[in-house]
This record gives sequence, structure tokens and C-alpha cells, in this order.
Amino acid sequence: MIGVFDSGVGGMTVARALEAAMPDRGIVYFGDLARTPYGSKSAETIIRYSLENSRFLLDQGARMLVIACNSASSVAAAAVRAEFDVPVFEVIEPAVARAVAVAGNGRIGVIGTRATVASGVYEKKIRAAAPGAKVFSVPCPLLVPLVEEGWLSRRETRMILRRYLAPLKRKQVDAIVLGCTHYPLLADEIRARAGKRVTVIDSSLEVAAVVAAYLRDHPGFAATIGGRPGRYHVSDTTPAAAQIAKMIFGREINLEKVRTP
Amino acid sequence: MIGVFDSGVGGMTVARALEAAMPDRGIVYFGDLARTPYGSKSAETIIRYSLENSRFLLDQGARMLVIACNSASSVAAAAVRAEFDVPVFEVIEPAVARAVAVAGNGRIGVIGTRATVASGVYEKKIRAAAPGAKVFSVPCPLLVPLVEEGWLSRRETRMILRRYLAPLKRKQVDAIVLGCTHYPLLADEIRARAGKRVTVIDSSLEVAAVVAAYLRDHPGFAATIGGRPGRYHVSDTTPAAAQIAKMIFGREINLEKVRTP
Repeated sequence: MIGVFDSGVGGMTVARALEAAMPDRGIVYFGDLARTPYGSKSAETIIRYSLENSRFLLDQGARMLVIACNSASSVAAAAVRAEFDVPVFEVIEPAVARAVAVAGNGRIGVIGTRATVASGVYEKKIRAAAPGAKVFSVPCPLLVPLVEEGWLSRRETRMILRRYLAPLKRKQVDAIVLGCTHYPLLADEIRARAGKRVTVIDSSLEVAAVVAAYLRDHPGFAATIGGRPGRYHVSDTTPAAAQIAKMIFGREINLEKVRTP
Repeated sequence: MIGVFDSGVGGMTVARALEAAMPDRGIVYFGDLARTPYGSKSAETIIRYSLENSRFLLDQGARMLVIACNSASSVAAAAVRAEFDVPVFEVIEPAVARAVAVAGNGRIGVIGTRATVASGVYEKKIRAAAPGAKVFSVPCPLLVPLVEEGWLSRRETRMILRRYLAPLKRKQVDAIVLGCTHYPLLADEIRARAGKRVTVIDSSLEVAAVVAAYLRDHPGFAATIGGRPGRYHVSDTTPAAAQIAKMIFGREINLEKVRTP
């Protein structure tokens, strides 16, 4: 199965995209709701949690890992790759590749949690791929709580989005990378406020395309990834989480509670 | 020492109130930043965390416990009292006593996190003390992230407060209980929007008064509570947390990082 973890249910946007791209592949998901969110926590703590989550997924039968959390992708991907001998994908590289394909050496905006923006990971990776690119990053810490409240198109949400996006508008960016797995749920509102000529890049779609390409290119390995129905584990259950899961998938998702790994 | 724990740094409003009421008593604090927030988590998970936090504080020399988190007070106080043989205070009873003193059998509003409001704890306790009282509770899940961003008097914060307080205005409440330890930082904005005739009840001040009274009434026990300077432990450190601690105390607070208990 394809193992996918996130700090909560936001990473289910990635699971949904994987499912849409490869309906014949089984997914095992872990959402660390008992310790969510990661974005406001230190790198050391996020690394420890990511290693625990990865071990849990491998114990559940995962043969590859997708880190569906930008905070964990930015600070813990190297540690996960060093610890475990399976293919490990994360959500940043694919979004960076797309941003560079779209904007080249132009102007690229990145929005994300504080941890993701502070890590500077998008900036470094975009510059490595396109040394002439100009990158402008804006931390948007209130968007996750707004999404988790289901306030997707409220007036307050639109005002806060306008405030967050204002510096990117002033910089006249060509593309905006949604650097958080919750943000695809706000993609329409972000597009409406970003302006018509701006490409909004949804990393859940990009990572799904990269994983699909990897499996196409590695048919022997791909044969070990079965077609069992998705299993969704969480370290805590709340009505709000169940509702967001339903909002993301457009159907009821059975969240199985497990003890924090 | 007086042991105080919270899911994060919000409970420092209680530590500050204890310090102001009893400058000669030592405080040992634990803020569970590695697993914050509690308000969106299940009762089972909050109880487990509260027992772990209490054990940590007792190991650090606490002789009494103050649960400085409404979510933990509402769902875990009984479990902490059953497990440990020390005086345990929480932030709900003192605020309820004050609300009933102010509003009697009148109309009382309560604002808090989802977990606190869903627990119905304020409603039950107010009705037990004043059976004729009418209680109106409103979950305000966005206020904690807004405070943690330092958005204390931004236009968006005022709009969101207006939306949250509208049902209480319609009900013409006599008092509003701030049912979350972050909310005292928004007390001025809440007062401005609640109307002049409404008493806003800050549970940090109420619990400090109750603890001071207990120590006054138990001089033998009080003699075991020394006057060492406050020690502030956290399970994770971030610049934002250090900033909120400073905002609460009006001075730099040394946050010592410890492993999650």
C-alpha cells in the first residue's frame, strides 16, 4: 500500500489526489490528530513525530511513504529517508518543479505555515532549480484553523486571505504555491484574490502525478502496491475531523482511532 | 511550589494572576506546546495528557496543582483528583461562582473552545449553583489562533469577535465568562463589543483568588509552598510561544524545554 501521513486531516487532500490518479492502488493513511498541528512546533519535535508516524505506516503494510504535510516535508524528509529503506515522497519537490516549469526565472509566491516559511525550503529549492527566480514567502498561520472551522468562503476568511496575499500582489508574482495541504480547500478563494494571470499550484495534485510516474517507471516495485481499499487511521477522533474528511473526499470516511505511535 | 499546567502558554495568564495575588509563592509551570492545542482533541486524549502533565509537575516539586486550561479542567479534573493526593484547582468552578454572584438567576454567556462548550460543564455547574439561571454558550475556536498570532486588536479579530458575541448580545446576557485561558488577552476587545452592562469574568483572576484563600485557610499546608522563583517548562519551544509569554507577563520568561512527559 501507499503510506501517507499528515499532522491531521489536511493531508487527505493528498490521499484524495493519489486515489484520483491511481484508483487501483491501496492507501494507508495516518493523521496525527492527537498532536496536531505541526506547523507551530519545532523542527526537532516534527522530526520525532515523523519518524514515529512512518514506522506506524510501515508496520501497517505500507511499501512506500508520502509525507503529506508541508511542515514535515520541509524539516523531516531527510530524516525519514535516512531511517527507512523505502521510496519516500514529499509535497515540496513536486510543487517546486511545477512552479519552475510555470514561472521559470520569474516571480514565485509561496504561502504556508510559520514552520514551512521559516524553514526557507521552498526558496532554496526553487533557487536551486531556477537560480534567477525571485521567491516571496508569506506565512499564513490562520488559514489552517479557518479551514478546520469550515469557514471556506466567509467574509472574515476572504479578508484574511486578502491581507495575506497583498504582499504577493504587490510583487506581481506569476505563480503562487499552496505550501500547506489544507490550502487546496481554499484554492478557489485564493485564485479569485490572486488575479487572473497568476497560476495557483496545488501540491496535492503535483505529488500524485510524481507518485504515479514513479510507479509507472518501476513496474516490478509497483506490483507490490496492492489494490486494497483505503484505510484511514488517526491518533484522535473528533466530529470536526470527520467533517473535514468528508468535505475533502465528498463521502463518509471511516476514521480508525489508534494510539499515538 | 504551586504546579500549573496548560496545553500551551495561554495558561500563563493564570500563572501571572497567581504571581500577582501571591508574590511570595513559588510557581512551577508546564506548557504542553508539543501537543497543543487540547481544545480540539477528544476527552480521552485530554485526560491522558493531563495525568502525564500532573505527574511531571509533582516530580518537579509541586505540592498542589492548578489546571490552567479550560478544556483540561472540564474533562480531566476528576481524573487528576482521583489519581493524585494533593489539592487540585481548576479554572471553571471559580469562574462559575463569580458568574452566579454577579448574575444570580439571570442570563449568563460562556465563550470557550469547542471541547469546553461541547462538554457543557459551565452550563451544568452554573445551573447546579443557580437553578434558575439561563446559560448561553458559544464556541469560539478561532480566538486561540488569533491570540497566538498576536492579532489582539486587528480589524479581522474584531469582526470575528462581533460574530461570536452576536448571539450573546441578542440574548441580553448579564455576564460573559471567558472560558479559555487565552481570552483574558482579548478582554478589552470583548468588553467593548459586549456592551456596558455586561460583566466580563476572567477566570485567571478568579482561580488566583480561590488559591490564595485556600492557602490562607490552610496555614500548615501553605508553609510547604515555598517562595522560589517561577520555573516555566514547555514540551516544545517556538519564537511565537516566547513572544506570547512575554506579552502575558510583560517581561522576558525563560522557557525551559523538557521532553513531553
